[in-house]
Amino acid sequence: MTILSQIMQQSATAFAEYRKTGPAQRALFLETVAAALEARREALTTITHQETHLPLARLNGELSRTTGQLKLFANLVREGSWIMAAIDTADAQRTPPKPDTRKMSVPLGPVVVFGASNFPYAFSTAGGDTASVLAAGCTAVVRAHFAHPQTSALVFEAMQEAIRSCNLPEHTVQHVTEPGNETGKTLVMHPLTAAVAFTGSQKGGMALLGYARERPDPIPVFAEMGSVNPVLLLPGKLAEDAAALAKKMAASITLGMGQFCTNPGLMIGVAGEQLDEFQRHLAEEIGRFSPHRMLHEEITARYDESVSVITSKPEVRIVANNTAAFATITAAGFLRDVSLREEIFGPYSLLVQCRGEAEMLRVIDSLGGQLTTTLMATDEDLRQNAALIERCTRIAGRVIINEVPTGVEVCASMVHGGPFPATTDPRFTSVGASAVQRWVRPVCFQNFPGHLLPEALQNANPLGIWRTVNNEWTNR
Amino acid sequence: MTILSQIMQQSATAFAEYRKTGPAQRALFLETVAAALEARREALTTITHQETHLPLARLNGELSRTTGQLKLFANLVREGSWIMAAIDTADAQRTPPKPDTRKMSVPLGPVVVFGASNFPYAFSTAGGDTASVLAAGCTAVVRAHFAHPQTSALVFEAMQEAIRSCNLPEHTVQHVTEPGNETGKTLVMHPLTAAVAFTGSQKGGMALLGYARERPDPIPVFAEMGSVNPVLLLPGKLAEDAAALAKKMAASITLGMGQFCTNPGLMIGVAGEQLDEFQRHLAEEIGRFSPHRMLHEEITARYDESVSVITSKPEVRIVANNTAAFATITAAGFLRDVSLREEIFGPYSLLVQCRGEAEMLRVIDSLGGQLTTTLMATDEDLRQNAALIERCTRIAGRVIINEVPTGVEVCASMVHGGPFPATTDPRFTSVGASAVQRWVRPVCFQNFPGHLLPEALQNANPLGIWRTVNNEWTNR
Repeated sequence: MTILSQIMQQSATAFAEYRKTGPAQRALFLETVAAALEARREALTTITHQETHLPLARLNGELSRTTGQLKLFANLVREGSWIMAAIDTADAQRTPPKPDTRKMSVPLGPVVVFGASNFPYAFSTAGGDTASVLAAGCTAVVRAHFAHPQTSALVFEAMQEAIRSCNLPEHTVQHVTEPGNETGKTLVMHPLTAAVAFTGSQKGGMALLGYARERPDPIPVFAEMGSVNPVLLLPGKLAEDAAALAKKMAASITLGMGQFCTNPGLMIGVAGEQLDEFQRHLAEEIGRFSPHRMLHEEITARYDESVSVITSKPEVRIVANNTAAFATITAAGFLRDVSLREEIFGPYSLLVQCRGEAEMLRVIDSLGGQLTTTLMATDEDLRQNAALIERCTRIAGRVIINEVPTGVEVCASMVHGGPFPATTDPRFTSVGASAVQRWVRPVCFQNFPGHLLPEALQNANPLGIWRTVNNEWTNR
Repeated sequence: MTILSQIMQQSATAFAEYRKTGPAQRALFLETVAAALEARREALTTITHQETHLPLARLNGELSRTTGQLKLFANLVREGSWIMAAIDTADAQRTPPKPDTRKMSVPLGPVVVFGASNFPYAFSTAGGDTASVLAAGCTAVVRAHFAHPQTSALVFEAMQEAIRSCNLPEHTVQHVTEPGNETGKTLVMHPLTAAVAFTGSQKGGMALLGYARERPDPIPVFAEMGSVNPVLLLPGKLAEDAAALAKKMAASITLGMGQFCTNPGLMIGVAGEQLDEFQRHLAEEIGRFSPHRMLHEEITARYDESVSVITSKPEVRIVANNTAAFATITAAGFLRDVSLREEIFGPYSLLVQCRGEAEMLRVIDSLGGQLTTTLMATDEDLRQNAALIERCTRIAGRVIINEVPTGVEVCASMVHGGPFPATTDPRFTSVGASAVQRWVRPVCFQNFPGHLLPEALQNANPLGIWRTVNNEWTNR
């Protein structure tokens, strides 16, 4: 047996035990992981700063977000309504008699999680994907990202400590550090792999989906592959305060060297004096930016290459280029060149100049699925552009008014997902409480004696969870 | 533009309107379809009886189930919690400030529905797939099954009448009657197709999944492809009343000429006197069965062929063959021949004789995903075989104790799905209220002014739906 086969076998064996953990035990485990990470805060941020060049302040914030995510899932597991319990009691008088049926979610099995480079904590070894997998009752096999190996190792050490102190199966979480595409392919194609989580590039996500499709059995693959996150700059808003808007946009474009899936890579406005003024202010802001090193050499090389290709196009006019780059093009030019719709990972944004609102609609309609769409607009702008709001909603997982797309709140109502090519399945999110739904399936228990039912489905509702009983919501 | 392209274009245009319908309007539409079908009950059952050879009593029951399904989805849409609304309000005091985010489900787009032969009403033109698609706010393009064209046409006429009387877009539902695999392929691969629903054979479902995979963009395909639905006959239960159990099983095996996805095609027991007695009783019951014509010639031919192939295997012993067929084999023989795990669509069942409970476990573990697993067991049997219950749960969408798998209740807690190869995605069901979840995706609205939010997400909760507000369930 190869080492990867052995890892998947161990994950399946651990799953047979881990899936039986109750809400209290699972929640405590997630909290223990959070505490173990917290205990390593200084060592972690020091190492990760060296490995990723991300500023310490950002890393401290991201670590807090990561422990916060673990705690959110702990609370979710304790609260219990995420398993969508539904009870329909028997009715012997009906013709034909109605059986007693009760439904709840159960975990899928071992999930392979691919760590992302741009969130060494929040989307890596103990990040949101892993936390949601463990909350679901699945075991995790994490493929560490090559760009921060020591960070991943230290995070994994924290998780192992939590596994031991919670008396859980040793292989509840495992770590694969072997690099190369073959490793990823072997993991995705392994017969015991029940599902796959990925955050990263279009190319990476589509490769994993391709491997999954070579399996005899289809399995769920959730790949979040980024997007250009269009921001619509409406006339009233531009007129109100172009300078403040430019400052806000510049900060979002350059945040973390633009290394966010929700980075605003595309801005769309109606050409004219106000947009010109915004453009001047944004050029100033971008010119003032102090770049720092990107996550790793490959990303830097790819970014430099992409910006140079884009800005050498005759129709694209570069407005500012100070590592952070800002260019502009007419809507007609944009609509002619599909390559401009692709994400450039880094502190870059393209401003598309339209001849009017009808052309803005055409630009929006030319775009594929997005993680986010944003409207920078006054109340009056919004009143006059109802169609724009609708179109923004049709293509995105999150629609934002007058806030920047960077900054993804981790909460029940977050959607970090969207139609293809932003993700491989628009019905799910990889951030927020609903992320857990990717890793579970419903099971119906019919005519079970009460004592053999899972606690969540027993009449007395010993877990006190919200559920439906004969179509009525109740926590009794 | 070909006719199929035109149909998909019309569906997309209708979708742009239909998706905006509110709960009251959508619910009324579903109820109007139900009433229009009810008004055609006599004409429908007469035609369908001629086309499918199904008894009138069954057809009347199935039509009631179908109108019941439409009404269930109408109630679901009115009740409103299916959109999983969640509100997290802003907190400006927090560092960083917490934004206002609100999430709900929105429809995916035009869905292609493939009608099934074995449920001319409940899984055909206005069946459960279509009803769930319309409840979700999606438009439907229904590929009618060739085996009951007049039934489909009359059902479609009823739907068109409902569309007109509810003032909905003409192409909210469309009908494709053109036969051939190419038609299905073209529909699945059309760029405007947002998702696919199918109920039928393994071969049919996998072909559609294959077409979907040829698209540049992945789309959700839910194919329910049947299963052998193993029934475990435990010793105590056999000892209790083998004759009654045989009668119950015979009725389930032969119901509707065995033309159900949940037909019990496999029984598993421990060899011995009690199982022999059960076998004798079951042979008598099967021998007494009066067959009627199957749904269409192809199904009859395939059934006859399959039974003759199976029963000619040296290890399989035929016990009764009276169109309905019942055979037996040792567990060792069963484990050696993977072809015996495949569904035979019709009134056939295979009894696997094990040397003990450990071998029963091996047989269960050799099976792929199932729509159902059933335990025929006394309380004492269940106490002594906890492992069997767990294994039954791991491979199935529905686990049943002491009831037969045929008869699928349409309710909130039903799961008609299961791990592959029973379906292409174990996370969903095609029967019951949750079936609607296949056709929606979540959208997060961030920092929206109240009046621009969908009603479901407004502070005042004008729809009075159950939702979470800052992690608390409430219908205020």
